Amino acid sequence: MARLVMKFGGTSVGSVERIKNVALRVKREVDAGNEVAVVVSAMSGDTNRLVDLVSSMSTMHDAREYDVVLSSGEQVTIGLLSMALQDLGISARSWLGWQIPVRTNAVHGSARIEEIHCDEIISRFGEGQVAVCAGFQGIGTDNRITTLGRGGSDTSAVALAAALKADRCDIYTDVDGIYTADPRIATKAAKLDKITFEEMLELASLGAKILQTRSVEMAMKHGVKLQVLSSFEDLPGTLVVDEEEIVEHQVVSGVTYTRDEAKITLQQVADKPGIAALVFGALADAHVNVDMIVQNVSEDGKATDLTFTVGRKEMNQALAVLDKLTGEVNCKAIVPDANVVKVSIVGMGMTSHAGVAQTMFAALAEKGINIQVISTSEIKVSVLLAEEYTELAVRTLHTAFGLDAA
Amino acid sequence: MARLVMKFGGTSVGSVERIKNVALRVKREVDAGNEVAVVVSAMSGDTNRLVDLVSSMSTMHDAREYDVVLSSGEQVTIGLLSMALQDLGISARSWLGWQIPVRTNAVHGSARIEEIHCDEIISRFGEGQVAVCAGFQGIGTDNRITTLGRGGSDTSAVALAAALKADRCDIYTDVDGIYTADPRIATKAAKLDKITFEEMLELASLGAKILQTRSVEMAMKHGVKLQVLSSFEDLPGTLVVDEEEIVEHQVVSGVTYTRDEAKITLQQVADKPGIAALVFGALADAHVNVDMIVQNVSEDGKATDLTFTVGRKEMNQALAVLDKLTGEVNCKAIVPDANVVKVSIVGMGMTSHAGVAQTMFAALAEKGINIQVISTSEIKVSVLLAEEYTELAVRTLHTAFGLDAA
Repeated sequence: MARLVMKFGGTSVGSVERIKNVALRVKREVDAGNEVAVVVSAMSGDTNRLVDLVSSMSTMHDAREYDVVLSSGEQVTIGLLSMALQDLGISARSWLGWQIPVRTNAVHGSARIEEIHCDEIISRFGEGQVAVCAGFQGIGTDNRITTLGRGGSDTSAVALAAALKADRCDIYTDVDGIYTADPRIATKAAKLDKITFEEMLELASLGAKILQTRSVEMAMKHGVKLQVLSSFEDLPGTLVVDEEEIVEHQVVSGVTYTRDEAKITLQQVADKPGIAALVFGALADAHVNVDMIVQNVSEDGKATDLTFTVGRKEMNQALAVLDKLTGEVNCKAIVPDANVVKVSIVGMGMTSHAGVAQTMFAALAEKGINIQVISTSEIKVSVLLAEEYTELAVRTLHTAFGLDAA
Repeated sequence: MARLVMKFGGTSVGSVERIKNVALRVKREVDAGNEVAVVVSAMSGDTNRLVDLVSSMSTMHDAREYDVVLSSGEQVTIGLLSMALQDLGISARSWLGWQIPVRTNAVHGSARIEEIHCDEIISRFGEGQVAVCAGFQGIGTDNRITTLGRGGSDTSAVALAAALKADRCDIYTDVDGIYTADPRIATKAAKLDKITFEEMLELASLGAKILQTRSVEMAMKHGVKLQVLSSFEDLPGTLVVDEEEIVEHQVVSGVTYTRDEAKITLQQVADKPGIAALVFGALADAHVNVDMIVQNVSEDGKATDLTFTVGRKEMNQALAVLDKLTGEVNCKAIVPDANVVKVSIVGMGMTSHAGVAQTMFAALAEKGINIQVISTSEIKVSVLLAEEYTELAVRTLHTAFGLDAA
C-alpha cells in the first residue's frame, strides 16, 4: 500500500468523457489498496473562457477579483470528478483550496503556498475516501481566494504530496514522459526512465514545458518523488528522483531548446566601468529579466559590443528602456534580433566529465553553425544560435552525446 | 441616506455588457449617498451549462458535489461585477457565501438560511465600499458549500436585507413590476404601485414567477420592504409592503393563472370513511403535493367522484401511486387530465367584501366557461378550467373586477 497524489491537467479533464477516464485511472490505484489524493486543473478551455471574460470586463482588474473568477474553474472539475468516482462505487469528496486549507500569502494571481493542513484528508484516507482537490488555488492571509499563477496545479500537487508525506506524486499529462529531446525534432529521442531533480529543473526552466519550475523546486526541497506519465496511454513514465537514486549518470541526459528569447546588442558602447550596471539596473527596474550576457574585451580599450538576451515578449519593453538611457549610455547602434534559439545540453554527468562544452562547440562548428552567445551552469551548457538552425543543432547534439536510440 | 440591497437575476447579468450596465445602476445609488449590498445570480446560460455537465456526468449525483459545481456560477459574476464597479471608481469587493458567511442547514441543493453575519460588510459600508454578494449559495453545518435551490438568489437578497436591516430590497428583473394580470394576455393590465406581502405570496405561489415564494415569506416575516423593478428600463417598480401601508384596498388586486397543474379524477369510488386518507396518505408518502381537492356528496351514499390536482410534472408519478392502491381503493376509472388551467383572483379587499366568489362564478358562467374545481383562501379564489379558456377567463375576470386600465 502506498499513499499517492495523482495530478491531472486541463487537457486530461477537458470533457465529461475524459473526467470519467480519469476516474477509472484513480479507481485502479484505489483497487490496488492505495490511499489517493487527486489534484485537478480546470477543464481545458474553461480557464481561457474565464480569462476572456475578465479581459473584456476590465483591463486593469483587481487581482483579488481575478482570483475569485478564475478559481471557479477547478471548482467545477472537482465536483464532477467526485461524482464520476462515486458512480464507480468509490467514496470520494471534493476539497476547495479554502476547505483543505491550502494557506498562501496574499499575492493574488501568483500566490505562494505557505502551509497545508490535511489532517482531515488523512483521517478520511482511513475510511477509504479519495480526496479530490482543486489545484491552482488556496486561501490567502486576507481570507480570500488566491491562485498560484498558470500551471500552478503542478505546485499544488507537489505541495499536497509533501504535506501528506505521499510516497509519490504522479503528474498525468499529454506527453508520456521526459525525452532526451523533443521527439518531433529528434526522431531518435528516447524516453528517460529516470531523471534527477536538478536536470528536470534545468529542463523546466529551459522550456520543456512539462512541469512547472516551481513544482520541481518544491519536490526537490521536500524530497517528493515525482513521476511524469500519460493520461491517455497506459505506459510507464519518467521518474524524477534524487541524485543518489540514479547509479550511473549519462554525461548528457537531454538536449533542449527554447524560442522564447530575443537578443539585443549595443554596438560600440564605451568600455568604461558602470555602463553594464546602468543598463542592467534600468532593465531590472522595469522588471525585464535578462538571461545570457556577453561582453567582449575591446581591442582598443575604448569601445566594445555588449550583447544580452531577454524574453522575446519583453524585447520591445527592453528597447524602450534602452531608448531612455540615450545620453547616459552612448553606442553606435542598438540591434535587436528575435530570430534566435537557445539550445542547451543538460546532464548531471557533466560535473565529473571535462570537455563537454568543447564537444558541443565542435559538433556545432562541424555543421557550420555559428554560436552567438554562451552560458553555462554546473549541469548545463546553453548556446544562442540563429533560429533557422534549431532542428539541425538539436539533432546534431543528440547524436554527438550518444543519445540516439538504438 | 438609505441602506439598500439590490438583487440582479441571471438575465440582468447575462453578458459583460449587461454587468457593466448593472454597475452603472449601482453607481447611481452609491452616488446618491446610499450604502449598497448587491446580490447576483449566475450569468444566464451558465447555470444551464453547469446543470448539463452534472447531468451528463451522473444521473444519481451527490447533492454536495452538485452544490460545488453549481455555486461556481455566482462566483464568476461577483468577481466580474466587482471589477466593473472598480472601473467606475467605486470601492467594491466580492463576497462568497462562505465568506460573509451565510450559514445554512446541510440540506444540499435546497438549503435553508439559518443565520447571516454581516458585521464586516457593515463596517466596510462605513468606508464607502459596496458588497457584491453571491446569491443562491451558503455554507452548511458540514462546512461545505450549499445552494438554496433555483431562484434562491431572491431569498439570499431578502435574508441579507434582513440581516443588514436594510431600508429596502430592490429586486431587478426582466419585468418592470407586478401587474394586475399577465400583460401578454390582458392588454388592459396595469402595473401596481403597491401590493401587500400576502397578495404577493398568493401571486408567487400561483405562478407569477417574478419572486420566489420563500423570499416573500421571509420578507414578510422580517418586515423587509421589497421593490420589484426592471433591470433594463428606468421606471418605478412595484413596492411589496405591509398591509398598513396601503390605505385603500382594491377588492381584487390581480388575476393570475398557472398551467402547472393536472387534474385526476377517481370515478365512482366507494363513499366510505378512510378512502381519502388512504389516497392522499400514499401520495404524500411519495412526495406528490396535492393542491385542490373536491369530493361530491354521493347521491346513493355508496359511490362518489374524487377529484384533485397535482403538479403537472408529477402526474405520472401520482398515477403510479394510485395504481399500487388498486385492491384497497376500488373505483370505476382513474381519469387524468393535463389540459387544465388554474385561474385565480387575489386581493386583500376580499376579506371585507362579500360576494366576490359569486361575481367571479357569474362572470365565467356568462362566457360559458365551466368550473371544474374551486378552492379558496382568505384573499384568493381559484378555479380550475379547461386550458383552452385561459385567456378568455383572465380577461373576463380582469374586466369584471374593474381592473382594466382607463
